[in-house]
Amino acid sequence: MPELRQNPFTKQWVIIATERAKRPHDFVRKNDNPVTIPSYVANCPFCPGNEHLTPGESHSVHRNGKWQVRVVPNKFSALSSEGELSRMVDGLKRTVNGVGIHEVVVETPDHSQTTALLSEQDIEMIVRSYKDRYFAITDDTRVEHVTIFKNHGTSAGTSLEHPHSQIIATPIIPPDIRTRMEVALRFYDEHGKCIFCKVLMDELAEQVRIVHETQHFVCLVPFASLTPFSLWIFPRRHMASFGEIQPEEMLDLARMLRIVLAKIYNGLANPDFNYVVRTAPGENRYSRYYHWYVSVIPRLTKVAGFELGSGMFINPTIPETNARFLREVDVSNL
Amino acid sequence: MPELRQNPFTKQWVIIATERAKRPHDFVRKNDNPVTIPSYVANCPFCPGNEHLTPGESHSVHRNGKWQVRVVPNKFSALSSEGELSRMVDGLKRTVNGVGIHEVVVETPDHSQTTALLSEQDIEMIVRSYKDRYFAITDDTRVEHVTIFKNHGTSAGTSLEHPHSQIIATPIIPPDIRTRMEVALRFYDEHGKCIFCKVLMDELAEQVRIVHETQHFVCLVPFASLTPFSLWIFPRRHMASFGEIQPEEMLDLARMLRIVLAKIYNGLANPDFNYVVRTAPGENRYSRYYHWYVSVIPRLTKVAGFELGSGMFINPTIPETNARFLREVDVSNL
Repeated sequence: MPELRQNPFTKQWVIIATERAKRPHDFVRKNDNPVTIPSYVANCPFCPGNEHLTPGESHSVHRNGKWQVRVVPNKFSALSSEGELSRMVDGLKRTVNGVGIHEVVVETPDHSQTTALLSEQDIEMIVRSYKDRYFAITDDTRVEHVTIFKNHGTSAGTSLEHPHSQIIATPIIPPDIRTRMEVALRFYDEHGKCIFCKVLMDELAEQVRIVHETQHFVCLVPFASLTPFSLWIFPRRHMASFGEIQPEEMLDLARMLRIVLAKIYNGLANPDFNYVVRTAPGENRYSRYYHWYVSVIPRLTKVAGFELGSGMFINPTIPETNARFLREVDVSNL
Repeated sequence: MPELRQNPFTKQWVIIATERAKRPHDFVRKNDNPVTIPSYVANCPFCPGNEHLTPGESHSVHRNGKWQVRVVPNKFSALSSEGELSRMVDGLKRTVNGVGIHEVVVETPDHSQTTALLSEQDIEMIVRSYKDRYFAITDDTRVEHVTIFKNHGTSAGTSLEHPHSQIIATPIIPPDIRTRMEVALRFYDEHGKCIFCKVLMDELAEQVRIVHETQHFVCLVPFASLTPFSLWIFPRRHMASFGEIQPEEMLDLARMLRIVLAKIYNGLANPDFNYVVRTAPGENRYSRYYHWYVSVIPRLTKVAGFELGSGMFINPTIPETNARFLREVDVSNL
């Protein structure tokens, strides 16, 4: 019998389609024509020596006199960093002019790298860059919320091979964050607890969906995982905003990210994926009821008409089976 | 300057990325290797003569002694049609057993057809089959809501070439319908009007996003269209439920669907697409504040990390430009 499960943070339902359930191995990517990616590409705007192809950098981290991580404004920015915010109401038409920040985080000078294969120290520099830019951008009074995310591979929405992530700061609170805030506030009203802390505690007690634990973070497969192998990474400590992360937690998050990305790289043969940091809006940075986390979403299935029409998903895998599979993936070779 | 626009039915925001805006012609599919699809495929479960490959039909429409439309249970059903509904609560874990209906509507006996190329009469038979099955399924007391949808092409989530659509009846009201109901109810409380009727009236007065009008239906590009060329088809008459559609409206909807699908077939060179009927839940069939409609969603862009993380979309096209483009696409050759 299939089973409908509900995400406690969004109230979204997913159909866990047990009758058509696939095994984890069915999702291992078939690389019939593996391509060798070069370390340097002459016309890649993110390769060293081509710095003039991007707008001037807003941040960088250097090692041995060379940049290791570089943050630049997105040349094809979805939002404009100039101008004042204005809102228009015309009947039922609501418009805000597109003021905001859109930056690219170049994660490594090496074009051929992939985040899963970087060292802990390299990933820590990326996480630190996220935090530095997060702070600088949140200070902009026009900004209500900052989304930090990565697209890896064409199914995940990127055409640029060079490892990079992105930061988009919007003049409104995105609806998906607002929903989580509203649900979490209702839970807090009723129970006096952070719903995210509670789920984390329950999952740690149950231990069936945990993928990996570090000193400060826990990675697990959600009970109501919308798609195969999607993952949550939670800080154990209650923090509403990613901006509150402390130095030792940054190194630990780097450790966790590396292991989790390595597990999907090894276990599923380098699938396309997205990750996204779901943090509280700037004004809610000390919220007692919201708790930031990272969602990692391998892109192994297509969204079809049912999902578009209902907001429900059909997941053809069993979350507990996927968690066990990922727990057992060995990453000691990386 | 880019612009953020809000969908009045869902309160979702989209970034209309004017700076990176593409022209309609940039989305015309390149068919480098057009394949000729045969009219009959020996192992296709939906081709005439292979009826034994599907479970027994729940509905069919015949012409000249042969079936023209055939509705069958989905062999790989996401839900189980047997058993009683039961709900489980275990801490924060909410589960409903997967009772429901999942059917496939085989739209034509001809494997090589595509909906856009069928005649009005053929499409009317499909619409009539939707309505007949909608009524029969809504009668099932375990069912709270029925979603009718179509996936065309691999990007839209189907691997089966033979033209077909699907019906999924769920034991819960999907979150995307619930959101629309809640927003519409608030509007009704405040204004005593259906928000959908109001938007339709405004759009008909403004005329800049209208794509096509028939006697009973209006097709338009939403002001806050999340993706390029997505479309709404509204009945002019206030009806909460698709089940309330009358015979002359069914023929007129067939006419509208044919023209709209032909416009995207001709104008964008047969893109992958989904359509979905967004109807009220059974118990709200006479609602004064909800209004059913069809969303048509060509699948021309990929959903990336920003969309997954924020629920906001970046639309690299201008809705008004897309509406004009589609208005002008000639479909008299089909």
